[in-house]
Amino acid sequence: MKAIRFEGRRILPVDIPVPDVKPGEALVRVSMAGICGTDIAIFNGYTHFEGVPGHEFAGVVEKCPDRPELIGKKVVADINIGCGACSDERHCPKRRVLGIRGHNGAFAEYLAVPAINLHPVPERLETRHAVFTELLAAALEISQQIHIHYHDRIAVLGDGPLGILVAAGLRQYSGGVVIAGRHPEKLAIAEKQGVKTFLLKKNTTPEDLLSQLGRFDITVDATGSPQGINWCIPLTRPEGTVAVKTTTSEKSGIDLSAVVVNELHLMGSRCGDMALALDFLETQRVHVEPLIEAVYPFVEFEAAFSHAMKKGSRKVLVAMPG
Amino acid sequence: MKAIRFEGRRILPVDIPVPDVKPGEALVRVSMAGICGTDIAIFNGYTHFEGVPGHEFAGVVEKCPDRPELIGKKVVADINIGCGACSDERHCPKRRVLGIRGHNGAFAEYLAVPAINLHPVPERLETRHAVFTELLAAALEISQQIHIHYHDRIAVLGDGPLGILVAAGLRQYSGGVVIAGRHPEKLAIAEKQGVKTFLLKKNTTPEDLLSQLGRFDITVDATGSPQGINWCIPLTRPEGTVAVKTTTSEKSGIDLSAVVVNELHLMGSRCGDMALALDFLETQRVHVEPLIEAVYPFVEFEAAFSHAMKKGSRKVLVAMPG
Repeated sequence: MKAIRFEGRRILPVDIPVPDVKPGEALVRVSMAGICGTDIAIFNGYTHFEGVPGHEFAGVVEKCPDRPELIGKKVVADINIGCGACSDERHCPKRRVLGIRGHNGAFAEYLAVPAINLHPVPERLETRHAVFTELLAAALEISQQIHIHYHDRIAVLGDGPLGILVAAGLRQYSGGVVIAGRHPEKLAIAEKQGVKTFLLKKNTTPEDLLSQLGRFDITVDATGSPQGINWCIPLTRPEGTVAVKTTTSEKSGIDLSAVVVNELHLMGSRCGDMALALDFLETQRVHVEPLIEAVYPFVEFEAAFSHAMKKGSRKVLVAMPG
Repeated sequence: MKAIRFEGRRILPVDIPVPDVKPGEALVRVSMAGICGTDIAIFNGYTHFEGVPGHEFAGVVEKCPDRPELIGKKVVADINIGCGACSDERHCPKRRVLGIRGHNGAFAEYLAVPAINLHPVPERLETRHAVFTELLAAALEISQQIHIHYHDRIAVLGDGPLGILVAAGLRQYSGGVVIAGRHPEKLAIAEKQGVKTFLLKKNTTPEDLLSQLGRFDITVDATGSPQGINWCIPLTRPEGTVAVKTTTSEKSGIDLSAVVVNELHLMGSRCGDMALALDFLETQRVHVEPLIEAVYPFVEFEAAFSHAMKKGSRKVLVAMPG
């Protein structure tokens, strides 16, 4: 089958065997996959993964001895694969992660996934929208980690697809969500979903943001930059929460005294609940169509990846030949 | 009256007027005061405070129009002074802090304190022990921020007075508290209070600590070093809490990816509940006597301060002439 491999900092189109289906696994034919900021970070050295990347996808089940009722069904999948012995796949120290750690991902015609990881996609949900399930689950994870009140003031920093989904998703829980970013056309996507917006200009400082918006109960770093956290910390009220979504291969220089004196909570936030995200997508509580920047055929993967790496890109999708 | 002023990086013995007692305030004659790591940090430029430092103290009330029943009583005091209009003195943005921000502290014969900040010291509690109330309150603050379970495994990094009080204090809530530090004689103080100990050698790495102790539900950075946090992060289980007590004027370089992927909670933790700490001291749930390194007379303040700045010192106290 055709696939893409990351090796070092190279993108290699390869022809490799269709994966074996081991006990407990299903074989999924990939329909469409999304290029994520994490894929770009991996390409740049984060996690040192070598193999087939890709963890945002939707596909059709071809083989599934353990859950035969899923054969022929459109599915998405949890990306964490635990050791099987522990109860928490998401944090199992021996876990594999689709396309990120120890397990080939979705930039291929087929991938093998544990049957228990599969979630059938509701009929009415288009494949190009179902691909967003994993990203939306990560965005909604904040709502599952802390109790969000309707009157909480929330600031989301970063107007990439993740930031927009965090803002639009949390808007379902709170009436006071603001997104700050550098791209008017992307902020407009969030604004249409009930989120207030703040355009960061080249010379905007964290102090400007604070003086114009005041402090927030919850701030979210979805900037993808090691410096994002230092915008969030001064913008968070004492005893408030900074939810950190950014993963980079660089360290962040942080003034911990501000965290201690204001007794802030810095909360790491990663993958989320796929069922919750599918429910949000099916009931159209968030709209992902405006997040699609382009859809490339799989044979043009490298062009798709270059496009995704451009600053300010929205989500680039790759359509599989199947 | 005699007092000590910090100006820039100088310690100045001065003779200044006894403070005016403004409406709502009490005049307290200082009996004894402790030199804290924060005083050393302030001396080194943290908070840029110029004035009379000192926030760990016990004294006797001389004037107190609002609570006349306290006159002649031994007291300790909350160090945060709110604006009066808001409900949260500890985090009031306009707050003054005794000896730290906008209000003269306890290295003086007298200080003025709002009457509502005063806590009478139980009769049986010696002054030299009452001086530890503020530090112990800060140590116990962690128990008031998060729910600590008996079976939680807790690692405290740093064997200074704060680290020892955190460990001994949290030992009242959890059966599994370990303190790691570089000073066998200081670790022994914690060990006598039911805390397990781990001696860090010159070449011990965070990986050594992890391989020998495993991961913890809660880790506490009481190292006073900007690098302490990077010992705590790998030692904390996924979804666990890193309680940060360290305040320094330097930034910390942090690998936020580990925080995000493991969904850690980094929780800043500062001042605590003086009444809780007095209760702990009165009922001898923690023992502070072994933490006393030396008691200097006030006229030898500079020698006391030099002693406190020596690496590995325990708590240096200063006895006032009164």
